[in-house]
Amino acid sequence: MGEVDSAALEAACERYVSLVGDEDVDSLMDLFAPDCRVEDPVGSPVREGHDAVREFYATLPAAGVSARLCGPVHTVPDARAAAFPFEIDTAGMVMQVIDVMTFDEEGKITSMTAYWNM
Amino acid sequence: MGEVDSAALEAACERYVSLVGDEDVDSLMDLFAPDCRVEDPVGSPVREGHDAVREFYATLPAAGVSARLCGPVHTVPDARAAAFPFEIDTAGMVMQVIDVMTFDEEGKITSMTAYWNM
Repeated sequence: MGEVDSAALEAACERYVSLVGDEDVDSLMDLFAPDCRVEDPVGSPVREGHDAVREFYATLPAAGVSARLCGPVHTVPDARAAAFPFEIDTAGMVMQVIDVMTFDEEGKITSMTAYWNM
Repeated sequence: MGEVDSAALEAACERYVSLVGDEDVDSLMDLFAPDCRVEDPVGSPVREGHDAVREFYATLPAAGVSARLCGPVHTVPDARAAAFPFEIDTAGMVMQVIDVMTFDEEGKITSMTAYWNM
């Protein structure tokens, strides 16, 4: 591990946040590895694989979702992992979230786990 | 799951942050379950069990470590999990960290995984 540096992980997380809720779901999904998994929130049923994950993100534009970072992206290149705090705005309701992500050796997202409650 | 509510998880995280680096390691360790594990940072060798975890935290007071929350504690009661951003001050050097924790049915910490880099 460790071929992916901190700047690459940070850039991927920033791009992820900028694309969540965007109509351009293709660009968002380009960030994910084929074998990705999404657990949002942690403890809920896991979405496994590119198609299931795409299905999840494809619902967000119609819900009026947008996201913005609200603190530093914590990257751990040796573990190809990152965690960051951000806000989700859903039609005016703002929710605070922490996402934890893991990446493959090409810097694609292999897992996203979200920590939030209403 | 779910017997431990959001307030209990939040209180445990707040107490954890207030006790990190304190001489009173007993009170800090009272927050942990017997079978706890600590991975700090993620990807580094895991400390397993109460004794190994205690050994880790017992080194912090001499290093002049203190911690403070710098954002909300995100609790997920259904998963008995929480994540929060905080700052570690080690003899004047401040580092930003996100911790992810899991808890047992009594609200004791079963795992702590830290996300940070220098």
